[in-house]
Amino acid sequence: MPSSLILGAGAIGAFFGSALARQGFEVSVVCRSDYQVVKQTGFHIRSPLLGEHRFTPAQVFSSAHEAGKQHDFVFLTTKVLEGEDRAAFLRPVVGKDTVIVLIQNGIDIEADIQAAFGENEILSGVAFIAVSRTGPGEVHHQSAGSLTLGSYPRGISPAAQALASAFEAAGVPCKPTEDIVKARWQKALWNATFNPISIMGGALDTAIILRTEEDRQVVRTAMMEIAAVAAAAGYAIATEVIDKLIAGTLAMPAYKSSMAQDFENGRPMEIEAILGNVVRAAHQRHVAVPTLDAIYRIAKMVEAKMRSESR
Amino acid sequence: MPSSLILGAGAIGAFFGSALARQGFEVSVVCRSDYQVVKQTGFHIRSPLLGEHRFTPAQVFSSAHEAGKQHDFVFLTTKVLEGEDRAAFLRPVVGKDTVIVLIQNGIDIEADIQAAFGENEILSGVAFIAVSRTGPGEVHHQSAGSLTLGSYPRGISPAAQALASAFEAAGVPCKPTEDIVKARWQKALWNATFNPISIMGGALDTAIILRTEEDRQVVRTAMMEIAAVAAAAGYAIATEVIDKLIAGTLAMPAYKSSMAQDFENGRPMEIEAILGNVVRAAHQRHVAVPTLDAIYRIAKMVEAKMRSESR
Repeated sequence: MPSSLILGAGAIGAFFGSALARQGFEVSVVCRSDYQVVKQTGFHIRSPLLGEHRFTPAQVFSSAHEAGKQHDFVFLTTKVLEGEDRAAFLRPVVGKDTVIVLIQNGIDIEADIQAAFGENEILSGVAFIAVSRTGPGEVHHQSAGSLTLGSYPRGISPAAQALASAFEAAGVPCKPTEDIVKARWQKALWNATFNPISIMGGALDTAIILRTEEDRQVVRTAMMEIAAVAAAAGYAIATEVIDKLIAGTLAMPAYKSSMAQDFENGRPMEIEAILGNVVRAAHQRHVAVPTLDAIYRIAKMVEAKMRSESR
Repeated sequence: MPSSLILGAGAIGAFFGSALARQGFEVSVVCRSDYQVVKQTGFHIRSPLLGEHRFTPAQVFSSAHEAGKQHDFVFLTTKVLEGEDRAAFLRPVVGKDTVIVLIQNGIDIEADIQAAFGENEILSGVAFIAVSRTGPGEVHHQSAGSLTLGSYPRGISPAAQALASAFEAAGVPCKPTEDIVKARWQKALWNATFNPISIMGGALDTAIILRTEEDRQVVRTAMMEIAAVAAAAGYAIATEVIDKLIAGTLAMPAYKSSMAQDFENGRPMEIEAILGNVVRAAHQRHVAVPTLDAIYRIAKMVEAKMRSESR
């Protein structure tokens, strides 16, 4: 069976890694903060999809250097943060034939990896999942749990198909897609609006954000701007999707976005990957995005305040 | 000497009332929350302009009904809040010859008072002052302290001139203006941007809001939108004013706006008077204000969250 390495195994990495392990993949992890616990007892995972179980990785490493280059698949499942060099993080574990799998948030997050590893196959994945670390080695999967996966920049390679089939067999819905970049833009509609808005005023949940028709109109306007950028980038999104997204969010219980949770816990936020890259894509293509500009800059002010307080 | 009544004597009312009292005006107050203390010992005011002193009103009333209609000037110095009927509050104290003086924040805050008291002279004033209530009957004037005053909708009546002269003589810079509505629009440039932005992310000060050139660009864009609304309403504002305002704010020590202070203390915020009325004026005149739309709705979300938590 293929050997896989989860690089930066937090909640997301542990969840998807455990699914592959269940299908017989040899799954090792590089685990920084929880290394000691995971090395001794693995991950304890509670999940409505996978049940409550213990995931014992084949090997547990405390650094990428220690893990080495012998793995068929390397999954990068960390947050995408400003100033962090993901290519440098990957370098010690990417061999000649390594398939790099990015399961990360954001828009335009593959280009620098492709530039650094031009000879390697790159898969890109968008996870729809609410999962969090509740303690050292403790992972709580609350809801959802699916993955959209494809080859970057497009297509479905045999490796992508194999991974998708393994996830499906493990009970994790995984759609392979011919056009993962378009899938990222579609996810950006929700991600790049609700996430940054949710960190205003000390964390807003979806019920507050969508409380009145006027509030929904601002969310809709922001989403229309994202769709316009996507279209300019060559990825047309049907605008009915927007009303469906808003209606779907309204139909769900009030939900605090992952960025709101990061904000409340003083953790780094993926503002650049999730919204900054959308705004930059807009400016490059001369698409006017006044609503996104305002939300983006105010989110950066909130982040600056958070950082100044944690110093 | 003219008899004056300060209706809703908080920090602002006590400050300007004490200045008039110093010039020999007979100044009474309607004081709700601090009635007992003020009735017994008056206001204790610390001010770089007026010094530290005690202001003992001629009479202290606990309600407008008690105060009656015999006053020459009635000053309304309360916050302008959604759902509060200021005309109803004024009605018990407005006689045939009463001059109504609105020293309040916001845009378009005179029309409903004029509609209710069509026979009365109305003066409108914009205060530039950092002053706060630090305890029952305790007023701390931190900085600034000036008033721009005029007849509504325009002109400088003898009453406006008399008041302005009295404030000046008391040491409070007071410019009478022929065009108080334009002065309100000019103040809105700062007020309608910094105030609502400052309540994001748990209260942002001016240093955070103006930290980078990109941040300043969003503030500038919001101010340009306000200037465009003002121009459509007939009040052209030179756009150099905007860069001067931003430079002036940068040159001052970091400052938390009054709305940020209200937010932090869970007090009602003047979002509608300060920004909502600007946005409505824009929509009525078909002026596109996408930045203000976004800031306004997000500010309303923050307010909704604050209210839901205080219930």
